[in-house]
Amino acid sequence: MTNPKHYEDQPHIKLTEGAYLSVLRALANEPEALGRLLADIHPADIADLIERLPRHERAMILNNIPYEHLGDVVAELEEGVQAHVLKLLRPEEVRHAIAELESDDAADMAQVVEDNTDESGPDAEDLIDDGETKQLLSYAEDTAGSMMQLEVFTAKPTQTATELLAYLRDNADEISNNPGTVFVVDGARKLIGTVSLHRLVKAPLTAAMESVMRREPLSVNPTTSTEEVIRIFEKYDLHNLAVIEIDGTLLGRITIDDVLDAIQANAAYVQAAAAGVDETEDLFAPISETTRHRLPWLGINLLTAIAAAAVIALFENSIAQLTTLAILMPIVASMGGNATTQTQTVIIRGLALGQITKQNAWVLLRKEFLAGGYIGTILALIMALGVGLLYSNWMLALVIALATVANHLIAAAAGWATPLILKRFNYDPAISTGVITTTFTDVGGFFVFLSLATLLLL
Amino acid sequence: MTNPKHYEDQPHIKLTEGAYLSVLRALANEPEALGRLLADIHPADIADLIERLPRHERAMILNNIPYEHLGDVVAELEEGVQAHVLKLLRPEEVRHAIAELESDDAADMAQVVEDNTDESGPDAEDLIDDGETKQLLSYAEDTAGSMMQLEVFTAKPTQTATELLAYLRDNADEISNNPGTVFVVDGARKLIGTVSLHRLVKAPLTAAMESVMRREPLSVNPTTSTEEVIRIFEKYDLHNLAVIEIDGTLLGRITIDDVLDAIQANAAYVQAAAAGVDETEDLFAPISETTRHRLPWLGINLLTAIAAAAVIALFENSIAQLTTLAILMPIVASMGGNATTQTQTVIIRGLALGQITKQNAWVLLRKEFLAGGYIGTILALIMALGVGLLYSNWMLALVIALATVANHLIAAAAGWATPLILKRFNYDPAISTGVITTTFTDVGGFFVFLSLATLLLL
Repeated sequence: MTNPKHYEDQPHIKLTEGAYLSVLRALANEPEALGRLLADIHPADIADLIERLPRHERAMILNNIPYEHLGDVVAELEEGVQAHVLKLLRPEEVRHAIAELESDDAADMAQVVEDNTDESGPDAEDLIDDGETKQLLSYAEDTAGSMMQLEVFTAKPTQTATELLAYLRDNADEISNNPGTVFVVDGARKLIGTVSLHRLVKAPLTAAMESVMRREPLSVNPTTSTEEVIRIFEKYDLHNLAVIEIDGTLLGRITIDDVLDAIQANAAYVQAAAAGVDETEDLFAPISETTRHRLPWLGINLLTAIAAAAVIALFENSIAQLTTLAILMPIVASMGGNATTQTQTVIIRGLALGQITKQNAWVLLRKEFLAGGYIGTILALIMALGVGLLYSNWMLALVIALATVANHLIAAAAGWATPLILKRFNYDPAISTGVITTTFTDVGGFFVFLSLATLLLL
Repeated sequence: MTNPKHYEDQPHIKLTEGAYLSVLRALANEPEALGRLLADIHPADIADLIERLPRHERAMILNNIPYEHLGDVVAELEEGVQAHVLKLLRPEEVRHAIAELESDDAADMAQVVEDNTDESGPDAEDLIDDGETKQLLSYAEDTAGSMMQLEVFTAKPTQTATELLAYLRDNADEISNNPGTVFVVDGARKLIGTVSLHRLVKAPLTAAMESVMRREPLSVNPTTSTEEVIRIFEKYDLHNLAVIEIDGTLLGRITIDDVLDAIQANAAYVQAAAAGVDETEDLFAPISETTRHRLPWLGINLLTAIAAAAVIALFENSIAQLTTLAILMPIVASMGGNATTQTQTVIIRGLALGQITKQNAWVLLRKEFLAGGYIGTILALIMALGVGLLYSNWMLALVIALATVANHLIAAAAGWATPLILKRFNYDPAISTGVITTTFTDVGGFFVFLSLATLLLL
């Protein structure tokens, strides 16, 4: 286990529009002065500076960071930038940076190195000296195992508050991370209770931990999903959560800081994945990398656009007879797309909050259908009035009105069903619902409008 | 200041597919048994049960919650459900629930009552007995003031670790919330340092706080934005942050639990606002409420759809001559829409992380233009080949290729410029970028494709 440094007394800088970067650039040729300046800046702030710099300028800062801060600075970087920076470091610097970190951060960083070098590069395992920390690499991403740290503060049930407080005081230098919670374990390291630090300081001095501890504490297994861990922290306002083996043996803990990071990382991932970009991409990544990340998604969307075009092609003759149809058809499709986005947003949120059950899902479908029909009718009347007055063609007005209502019902059904089905098959509905639902409202909108027009007008 | 209860020893239930709800429903006519069951359930779990229930069944649970848990249960509800439940309670129950809460939650709940009753209903101020808590109502939403709680644990600089630990122990019953951090203040209550609980327990017993504390601690003012508060917590891995007046007087603190809630609330708000739905809406809200929330956004989108239709109308003659144009034009517009979504996602994330500065913004525009041109060219070649082979019309193929590249450049420019401009004028780019950029790619896509076709083909 390592002894990470803490920066509670390091000043925090406020960046004003790259003013700091200008200072650093001015010092580019004076490494000593630059080093002194960087030694006084909080690692999180140095990381921010590096992220703002185009790639060719990053080495300037990197080479002048105090050696003992290197690990913490690199750990604070966004993953895409981290991958780039780790390639700029010499192998022994990478190993040193990793050794300086807490177990969870060390394992993460070693993994980033492995993921971003080719076959000939180092394995993550080889970069980590500590045997237990190596074990962390075996847990899958998006599990409690990958979030946990091994640094836990344990006590025996018979130890008293006095004893524990004395221990903390006497070993203050070694316990530089925040113990947060005392995990009470039996002789076989099985978790039997927890005592938060604030409970410990308020306990009578002579009280044994078994009389102070919370029994049957909440815990998760290393295979519990990150999503579930986040849910537990939020729901019960926890600061620390034990990770145990199936047999009850204490493995490690997850802290609220890591949960906060996981929430942000997950939100970034979902947003990026839904748009088909890579959330870890460095802003200044080369074009080739950007293209590789973005093209697949556009390819899928090309197929859905071709599907919609194929529907229009079915009605080419109708459009030839009445070109006004070509003008109006995108309005019907587009309104349906917006309506389905609304329904799916509500359903996806309900799923994320766990508010949707088998029983109430049908109540919601009924509600979305009614709302879609109601809202669709209002919009249909507005459009019919506009089209009727503009083209003096009230049959055309009727067609656009009927198509609008129909497409809003399609929108409600697709926006309700798609996330539920994706969730049922363990896909994250927040990521791929949009492309599916809007395909329904595009294809559906064009088809309903053009076929009604063909039937009623031509 | 109130003395909120804690539930550390309350069992946590795991909900399995509404099984619990079935049990509760079975007990609907046996209030005593229902009350005993609910007394053993963690307030956060009871809140979850209520959220899953259609509106007409909620009173069943609500009327049988142990009176002393009422405040905590209602506080755990999502805002839309909370508003509904508060209307089901008698005025004295609402007042009781509020009195049971910590200051920040009490103020929030009183505000929800005021916001959801008409003019004749109670003001938030009248629902709060404590004078200082009333003050919290004066801070604007989305500020540090609205996030802070008044319950802080303070010490004088001359107090020793022994004295403080003894004080915490002797007053354990009153200090039921987690002190987390000791705020060291001078005689005028000006903040001069902070000592985290883990620093306190590790400090030598005779050490005075002035020798243990972190000097010049981070702090915010009540008017600091929630966004900035979140950024500070994430960046520096804080658990507690002081809120001070401009003159340095300590007002309260923000805890990491509240930050976690704010992050989730903000994410929900942004997602909902971007789709034009109300993030606080109860899943089971009546149709009229749903319509009122959703219609305005669809109205705005109707205008943008009409703008795109107007562009098509300009080229009605061209479409009449070559109806194939009507089939192909949505593909060009749709691909541009997806490309601009990719660019804006990257830019919005860069802005959120503060990675985009005046200097590097131009580097990014150049990169997005190049990537857009490159990706657009690849897609253009694919489409040109398909169109050329399908229609044996290589001039048409050239038109769709040129239009595709042009619309990807429009997509890059719009996806880059829109979030930067919105941010410049203090709008949240995550909310309204999409509707603006896709209007550009729709209008631009139709215009470029149809005008090129008119020039080169007809």
